Amino acid sequence: MAAGTTTEEKTSEHLSLPDQQQTWELDETLMYGQYSRDLSMQVKQLLRQSKKEDIPKGLYAHHTSHTKAIQQCCRSFHNIVISKVGEDWIFLTILGIIMALLSYFMDFIIHKCEYARKWLYDSSEGMPVLQFLLWILFPIVLICFSSGFVHLVGPNAIGSGIPEMKTILRGVVLKEYLTLRTLIAKVIGLCTSLGCGLPIGKEGPFVHVASITATLLSKFITSVTGIYENESRTNEMLAAACAVGVACTFAAPIGGVLFSIEVTASYFAVRNYWRGFYSAVCGALVFRILAIIFKREETITALFKTNLRQEFPFDVIELVAFAIIGIACGFAGALFVYTHRKFVTFIRGQKRLKAFLQKNRFIFPASVMFLIATVNYPGGLGQFNAGRLTNGEALDELFTNVTWSDPNAYLNVNEKEIVLRWAGPTNNVFLTLICFIVMRFLGAAMATALPVPSGVFMPIFTIGAAFGRLMGECMAVWFPRGIGGQTIVPGGYAIVGAAALSGSVTHTISTAVIVFELTGQIAHVLPCVVSPAFTFTLVLCCRYSVTYCFLCSENLLR
Amino acid sequence: MAAGTTTEEKTSEHLSLPDQQQTWELDETLMYGQYSRDLSMQVKQLLRQSKKEDIPKGLYAHHTSHTKAIQQCCRSFHNIVISKVGEDWIFLTILGIIMALLSYFMDFIIHKCEYARKWLYDSSEGMPVLQFLLWILFPIVLICFSSGFVHLVGPNAIGSGIPEMKTILRGVVLKEYLTLRTLIAKVIGLCTSLGCGLPIGKEGPFVHVASITATLLSKFITSVTGIYENESRTNEMLAAACAVGVACTFAAPIGGVLFSIEVTASYFAVRNYWRGFYSAVCGALVFRILAIIFKREETITALFKTNLRQEFPFDVIELVAFAIIGIACGFAGALFVYTHRKFVTFIRGQKRLKAFLQKNRFIFPASVMFLIATVNYPGGLGQFNAGRLTNGEALDELFTNVTWSDPNAYLNVNEKEIVLRWAGPTNNVFLTLICFIVMRFLGAAMATALPVPSGVFMPIFTIGAAFGRLMGECMAVWFPRGIGGQTIVPGGYAIVGAAALSGSVTHTISTAVIVFELTGQIAHVLPCVVSPAFTFTLVLCCRYSVTYCFLCSENLLR
Repeated sequence: MAAGTTTEEKTSEHLSLPDQQQTWELDETLMYGQYSRDLSMQVKQLLRQSKKEDIPKGLYAHHTSHTKAIQQCCRSFHNIVISKVGEDWIFLTILGIIMALLSYFMDFIIHKCEYARKWLYDSSEGMPVLQFLLWILFPIVLICFSSGFVHLVGPNAIGSGIPEMKTILRGVVLKEYLTLRTLIAKVIGLCTSLGCGLPIGKEGPFVHVASITATLLSKFITSVTGIYENESRTNEMLAAACAVGVACTFAAPIGGVLFSIEVTASYFAVRNYWRGFYSAVCGALVFRILAIIFKREETITALFKTNLRQEFPFDVIELVAFAIIGIACGFAGALFVYTHRKFVTFIRGQKRLKAFLQKNRFIFPASVMFLIATVNYPGGLGQFNAGRLTNGEALDELFTNVTWSDPNAYLNVNEKEIVLRWAGPTNNVFLTLICFIVMRFLGAAMATALPVPSGVFMPIFTIGAAFGRLMGECMAVWFPRGIGGQTIVPGGYAIVGAAALSGSVTHTISTAVIVFELTGQIAHVLPCVVSPAFTFTLVLCCRYSVTYCFLCSENLLR
Repeated sequence: MAAGTTTEEKTSEHLSLPDQQQTWELDETLMYGQYSRDLSMQVKQLLRQSKKEDIPKGLYAHHTSHTKAIQQCCRSFHNIVISKVGEDWIFLTILGIIMALLSYFMDFIIHKCEYARKWLYDSSEGMPVLQFLLWILFPIVLICFSSGFVHLVGPNAIGSGIPEMKTILRGVVLKEYLTLRTLIAKVIGLCTSLGCGLPIGKEGPFVHVASITATLLSKFITSVTGIYENESRTNEMLAAACAVGVACTFAAPIGGVLFSIEVTASYFAVRNYWRGFYSAVCGALVFRILAIIFKREETITALFKTNLRQEFPFDVIELVAFAIIGIACGFAGALFVYTHRKFVTFIRGQKRLKAFLQKNRFIFPASVMFLIATVNYPGGLGQFNAGRLTNGEALDELFTNVTWSDPNAYLNVNEKEIVLRWAGPTNNVFLTLICFIVMRFLGAAMATALPVPSGVFMPIFTIGAAFGRLMGECMAVWFPRGIGGQTIVPGGYAIVGAAALSGSVTHTISTAVIVFELTGQIAHVLPCVVSPAFTFTLVLCCRYSVTYCFLCSENLLR
């Protein structure tokens, strides 16, 4: 009997909601009430939808004026576009464009911060103490702001975000990880923490930013068009968002898609790959067009364009050197993960230290920033490790088509400046490169442990490029007349080194593709894939030891 | 009771095999006999293995001479390598190397055939009838041989092989599809059919060849090392083999892996992607090194190396033209699939014709070959459609950095020859290109329906390049001073067109990556991905009509 009454009431509830008082007294009411409320929502949505669909038909049937007909045409065209092209593709286009705008805007702010720091440094020339203080204090203020802001607004924004996206894509629900608060915290925190010249990158956090944007956009569209949310569709869109995130950072659509797949998935659908690819292309295109509109570039080119020798990029025998770079980078990558882990466990292991740092939240970032800024101070130690250069600038110079160790090379003004910075009269090119590698290596391992949004890809990429350049300069000294009749191109070694080390740390091989798209030249395609292939095989060989570090680092890398 | 005796007998059987006579008379014997035989095999294998492992230990314990110790070291080193590196990786390396050797060997034979045909043509200069007969008869003999050989040795070798590989990778067992007979038929049939200058490609069949090689190699290793066969492992190796097949054809490891994934899979494991990548790198590397050893090349470069302008590859406004190429190629791709299908259904639909052709197996290939060779005859119609050129040569010329329609261009001797061929005094560059596109289009649609091993990628790639070049030359005429201050580069348009049309016909976007690796330049990365992205969106938009053609063509494309 009880069951009978509830069903009866249910139907009456559908039609109108008058006697809710009565039903609350029954046992089933709680469930029932919730159910009816949901249903009524859906019914309302359906009614709204059917109304929307009915209006044009009604108009068309009764009115025959031209304006109405045109309106109707527009509507039906809109309907056809939506139904044929599909909302997904429109969604992906919008996502790509938004992320490109966001990426460009963030790059602009970061660039301004870096410029401000250098301007402060340069304008206080002649007053060493003031100069040093300005060089140190400006980034400390920024990093403290970043750390405090992130702590207050959205603590989920700390770290890279790639491990968490991996978790979310596998079906785990991480609460408050994809909210507007986290987005704001991540974007502003990232701008400030990158602006202070720490050896950290934008790529990992930007994947997180893209995922949040996709989620919010999806919710917005759901609420506007009245489509029910679809979990599997949301996941597809998240996978695409990861690709867009990488693509918009490097203007590398192909590499971006592949990298996002390798980092986040263990099985993936080719269908998602296509979606990610489309969105990434939209993003990368708009990102590069923005650079033209704001007059930074003449036309669409690579982000770190190189002009290395194309006719005879390298001799076959040099493949041996490339393989050695690959193997060395395999070990270096494992060492980086290990160092980072040791540092984090040391900080977290000391109970008193931990308690002290948790009370005084600004001390840890400020002290790390102080250390790194002191080492990089261009008037002091920075002379010996190109400390004045930001990640991007260093990368640009490492990829130049000049043999730094060659004193007889014919150089133009720009190139002379670059060579002076790395191989001036006071320093040796090899010493500078080694110092650069060691300092950035330790700096990156420490900086990625700070409680601010930070990625590890870009610093590792730069360190790899420096390592490759070092190897290339050595080769140029050992074989001054080159191998196979043509001189050595150390810039090519830098490209290979960058691909190998970043591939080793992130356990991916698509870094080779990213390198091509970043540098705009593919002559080194085979060394670039041979080197990570070696690295990769090596990594798989000592899998047991590395997996351990890798898993630990994944747990800690946030 | 019967069960009891069998188990007793089973155990006695294990120790020695004397009284088999008795057991044959029982009901269970048949199963039992087989079972015992298998088991005894396994036991023997295990014994052999344990003996192998015991011997060095025994030696080490009893003998202390240096030679024995060294032997022991070598053995244990070997064991460590096998156990740590894993047999899979050794397998993948060997597979890559074998496929590279095979690919190079086949290319050599195909090249010789093409050369022989041209030599016959050139040496009979002055005798038009003989010249025509030689030009026609040589390929007809070749194609008849190919068709007959494939029919006799392995009819499974007919067609591309990619649809079948797709089927096999999804778990369907196709009998006799991966046997040695099919391999021999495919390799020899492919060499002869490609050697006669038909507009067909090597890429699809080579995927099949690679898969057979992987299967045979896997069986060989299984029989030697005594590992039990593992179905999931075999599938992994087959997926890697598909990647190697593409990589060894184009010397494009990255594009090869991606293309093979897109064409064969709908869900994919990242683990397989890594394996495929490693093997593809080995293959591509050896393939290019072979070209150096046999003195064709100076160093490792791209297969169709271009020297287009890098500093300012194109203006942003030209993206509109690239998008138009993409959309046009989307329709052209659908048209190609439709034409091919219509042709095949026409041939199969006419009952009398079908019966006649089945009786006289050589008539169909010979007549198609006759038609194509007549149209391409360099002394006749071939003047107007660059008929003398093979697919590879045409592609090389279409990618040159010369504006053919510009009469004032400064050219070297080679470039003058090329321009004469396409835009000589007797013909017009646009007319030649249109004729080339139409003739190759129809030719490819017919040739891929012949009962010989044939792929569709390369001809479509060439047609796409010609279409792009046509568009580029038109742009160069319309904007003689270029857009944005620099002149138009028609070679860049050719690259975009090739990526777009091949992407449209094969329904993939990784063709963009293949294009970069084939041409060795990545300056057109964004147009190249924008164009397929447009094509792709278009293809998805008119999915319903295209899917039908596509499915039909897949059924027929063998």
